[in-house]
Amino acid sequence: MARRLEEGATRTRPKLPGRQDWSSWPNYDAAAEGFRGYWYPVTWSSHVTGKPKAFTICGEKITLIRDNGTAYALHDRCPHRGVPLSLGNQQFPGTVSCPYHGWTFDLTNGKLCAVITDGPDSPIRGKVGVPTYAVAERLGMVWVYVPLAGEAAPPIDEQLPEELVDNAFVMGGRIDPRAGNWRFACENGFDEGHAKYLHRTSLWRLFKPMPVWNITRVVPEGRWIYRVQDEVHWEADFPGVGHWTGKRWWKLRPPKGTFNVGNTGTPKKVDPVIEKQGFPGFASLSMPGVLRIVYPKFIHYEFYVPVDADNHRYVGVMVNFLKGVATARFYAKYLGAIRWLFHGQFSGQDAWMVDVTDAPPEKLYRPDVSLTSWRNLAESTTRQKLAALKGEPS
Amino acid sequence: MARRLEEGATRTRPKLPGRQDWSSWPNYDAAAEGFRGYWYPVTWSSHVTGKPKAFTICGEKITLIRDNGTAYALHDRCPHRGVPLSLGNQQFPGTVSCPYHGWTFDLTNGKLCAVITDGPDSPIRGKVGVPTYAVAERLGMVWVYVPLAGEAAPPIDEQLPEELVDNAFVMGGRIDPRAGNWRFACENGFDEGHAKYLHRTSLWRLFKPMPVWNITRVVPEGRWIYRVQDEVHWEADFPGVGHWTGKRWWKLRPPKGTFNVGNTGTPKKVDPVIEKQGFPGFASLSMPGVLRIVYPKFIHYEFYVPVDADNHRYVGVMVNFLKGVATARFYAKYLGAIRWLFHGQFSGQDAWMVDVTDAPPEKLYRPDVSLTSWRNLAESTTRQKLAALKGEPS
Amino acid sequence: MARRLEEGATRTRPKLPGRQDWSSWPNYDAAAEGFRGYWYPVTWSSHVTGKPKAFTICGEKITLIRDNGTAYALHDRCPHRGVPLSLGNQQFPGTVSCPYHGWTFDLTNGKLCAVITDGPDSPIRGKVGVPTYAVAERLGMVWVYVPLAGEAAPPIDEQLPEELVDNAFVMGGRIDPRAGNWRFACENGFDEGHAKYLHRTSLWRLFKPMPVWNITRVVPEGRWIYRVQDEVHWEADFPGVGHWTGKRWWKLRPPKGTFNVGNTGTPKKVDPVIEKQGFPGFASLSMPGVLRIVYPKFIHYEFYVPVDADNHRYVGVMVNFLKGVATARFYAKYLGAIRWLFHGQFSGQDAWMVDVTDAPPEKLYRPDVSLTSWRNLAESTTRQKLAALKGEPS
Ligand code: FES
Ligand code: FES
Ligand code: FES
Repeated sequence: MARRLEEGATRTRPKLPGRQDWSSWPNYDAAAEGFRGYWYPVTWSSHVTGKPKAFTICGEKITLIRDNGTAYALHDRCPHRGVPLSLGNQQFPGTVSCPYHGWTFDLTNGKLCAVITDGPDSPIRGKVGVPTYAVAERLGMVWVYVPLAGEAAPPIDEQLPEELVDNAFVMGGRIDPRAGNWRFACENGFDEGHAKYLHRTSLWRLFKPMPVWNITRVVPEGRWIYRVQDEVHWEADFPGVGHWTGKRWWKLRPPKGTFNVGNTGTPKKVDPVIEKQGFPGFASLSMPGVLRIVYPKFIHYEFYVPVDADNHRYVGVMVNFLKGVATARFYAKYLGAIRWLFHGQFSGQDAWMVDVTDAPPEKLYRPDVSLTSWRNLAESTTRQKLAALKGEPS
Repeated sequence: MARRLEEGATRTRPKLPGRQDWSSWPNYDAAAEGFRGYWYPVTWSSHVTGKPKAFTICGEKITLIRDNGTAYALHDRCPHRGVPLSLGNQQFPGTVSCPYHGWTFDLTNGKLCAVITDGPDSPIRGKVGVPTYAVAERLGMVWVYVPLAGEAAPPIDEQLPEELVDNAFVMGGRIDPRAGNWRFACENGFDEGHAKYLHRTSLWRLFKPMPVWNITRVVPEGRWIYRVQDEVHWEADFPGVGHWTGKRWWKLRPPKGTFNVGNTGTPKKVDPVIEKQGFPGFASLSMPGVLRIVYPKFIHYEFYVPVDADNHRYVGVMVNFLKGVATARFYAKYLGAIRWLFHGQFSGQDAWMVDVTDAPPEKLYRPDVSLTSWRNLAESTTRQKLAALKGEPS
Repeated sequence: MARRLEEGATRTRPKLPGRQDWSSWPNYDAAAEGFRGYWYPVTWSSHVTGKPKAFTICGEKITLIRDNGTAYALHDRCPHRGVPLSLGNQQFPGTVSCPYHGWTFDLTNGKLCAVITDGPDSPIRGKVGVPTYAVAERLGMVWVYVPLAGEAAPPIDEQLPEELVDNAFVMGGRIDPRAGNWRFACENGFDEGHAKYLHRTSLWRLFKPMPVWNITRVVPEGRWIYRVQDEVHWEADFPGVGHWTGKRWWKLRPPKGTFNVGNTGTPKKVDPVIEKQGFPGFASLSMPGVLRIVYPKFIHYEFYVPVDADNHRYVGVMVNFLKGVATARFYAKYLGAIRWLFHGQFSGQDAWMVDVTDAPPEKLYRPDVSLTSWRNLAESTTRQKLAALKGEPS
């Protein structure tokens, strides 16, 4: 008979191998709609125009609109009768008007600055408004700060991966709406366990074998945690079950030794910008769900943006620290192969698993140190943030 | 950060401009599925035939069937095992039979008058039945009375707009299922604020400008409330924001002065039947959601029929008090233009807003005196009705 | 006004004809997802292959997979992160592997026997597992035992209709997913009342009339209950309503007298295997929802398999106790006519009613002795089962 965990029953049950629930991570458990108090990428900058558009981030309805070159974000609900402002348009410079009765809001502060259908002396003018959000543009995208408790937004550069702040680079990427909770997407991204098995059939790995299993540590450094591989095994004999390997006659020979830049062996030549960073491992993760996979010549980032409890937005970006003519080669390669093989089919296998993952209950195993380290990072960071908020004079 | 009203939190918050919730109108607030104790138009008379059809009014499932020229309404649920009677058919004159086991109900009183599969001596015959509803036919439609507490139906003519009871007229109309609560549809209909702005782009108004804003009073008279315009403004300068007008070079000049028959100026000639009514304003509303828009030569009515909390039926009727050959001209005009422009595209803009309105919370503004007057009318009428019911011996 | 039964209000209301609710059958009332502690047919044996497939029985997710000729059933949820095992495949003989991280389970006992991505010395190996289910193959189908409280499965032959255990036979059938609760399907199958009326228009009955009404008893014998017809009426005059008959000029004359093998009259010749059973009536029912309709030359069975509270699986089987060359004739007849007319169109009318039945509340009538007898059987059988379970040392 199927055993199901009753809510709250976990503590009194005999201990089973692996952790059963998320009670050690109460803040993480509560973050089904995402962690507030962070910058999130929302859409490509080129998609934000004078016509307002609707987005949902951390369960919050937001409209983005561009005026005179600057992007603005407002809460997407007219305070009059609840109609989405994203259905309206611009009637005056620097404003957006609700489609229903023409309530007109100042884009810079959300204040009701004119009420078309009640005339210039409308008594409610200036007395109400809609919440606004801090906006920034980075990596060709519009980012919005979703506050935790009404606080001002910190500079976005404090949250971006450090190497993206001061170096020149070229990039390609995709933004996809995806089914499933953002935490499953994020855990999938940093997960030590699955890639070698799930992606064994991906075209991206057609000529390169995957290991069978690794011994992995997780190493914190600054606001990042890194997966560091101590052992890499290319074959395995499972007693009483059989032999298993990812090697095939048509694939390249696996590299010798372990490696922590790229996942295919110690590279001959590493890009100088990347080398300078001295990353302790090729896969790293930081709050609020930013994955960095370092290859010898480029870095791949994934941002897992919470939409609501059942949906997230996958933002995948490939960055190359090139200048001048070399950038053209990158774009050709990205559009011709990377975008399709990696950002498409390979990560489509991940999207599939993220959609069907269903936990807790769960039973964790040795490689899941990657997951528990991430949850611990999320938990302690949030605990500190909340404590700091309480300590501030209100 | 987005502020959300917590339930019950309204009273203790500092007062913001505009009313925040519907607590001043408890009966109105509770009437999500409609006010019971009224006649409602359900469908065109020609659609009610010997084959039973299914409808929902005020959340109640009803089947309509015609027998020997008369329309009948029964609760659409066989008391045996709950199968809808509207899936059955007529096996004997004056009856409807359930499709499953042939339980047969008398159309005049809903009594189980024969049980085909249990023979003439079936012990349950005559002992059970289905509720029936009073039915009337007016304006080419079948109307059903949805009782409040089992009371007998009052004459429908007491509820119909007075001018439709004793005058000859021709009419055209449409009945459309629409998304959204019936109250938003009704409030939209009588709403002073939106028409000038929302409908500025409608083809119906292609050559006639709309005002920018008005000063409006609401005047009660009998069971109706009327919007009366004291000021009409065709241009406006919004300080620090800009100029706005509905005038265009290709549109007619706006009329001088205010007007309260039709919304396009003081007419040269008014239809004698309409003139005789002496309506104080061109837009009026009565329970349980009947809108009357008076033009010089015709009257447009809208009935907002509650289906359930999320759906209503829009019944729009255009009436012309003509006789003889003049009626042919009306039908040609209605079918050629009015039906498409007014009952179609113009009111499609309303349907769109009704579907996306989301209140409370809400913040009302000066023109919303039309909404609060309507809610007050609904509230006090219902309070009196309920008091009268309690006063009766039970 | 529509009267609705309030929950719990039944006992204090004045008694109305017919039973109102299912409070006399508490176990039956609780069995919305089916009775556990029985064997259920799931799918055709030929559909169970080396590629795992997903099924739901009694609300429980189950995956079926065949290995080396034997079918296995496992709970369809990987204990690691909740991914369905039916999305995985076989990496080693006698096992199934989860698609996400390659956790590998022994098909015979559900134990985690290898963890591909954690190597041969994975500490969690052998420590966790998935529940398994007893499996049998009968009538060309895979059957699964859904336990009540972790008990071992009894032999399936104790539950199969007795005549199918030791006799040779040929068969044809269909398995269809259907909307509606399994109890409505089961009650519909044994229901004395509806067939004569609902199926009057079915092609299967094109040339044979149906009675109007019967007087029926229900007779228990062993674990079966039988409908026994004492009177069969071919015409009826309903006082004040009209005359009704199923006879038509193009149909055969109805038979004389009553009959209890087949429903079309006393047959000239009955198959010897069928004759030997001495069935007291042509329609019989046993737990957990097995219907048997006995015709002179064949028996038709229906198994109503609970999927969840709103869906069931209809399994219809036509059996002929033939041997040798005569079997070919049966298959030709089944595929040419029976499958389409009977298992298709005729039972499609039943599927329609099962989908729209909505009870309780309900008001039962005389022929519903068939339903109440069935519910009493289900109720008392379950009461005994539960008592026996409690009496066992735990
Ligand atoms: S709902 Fe936005 S102006 Fe009225
Ligand atoms: S459900 Fe209507 S007659 Fe049986
Ligand atoms: S979810 Fe099944 S192996 Fe991880």
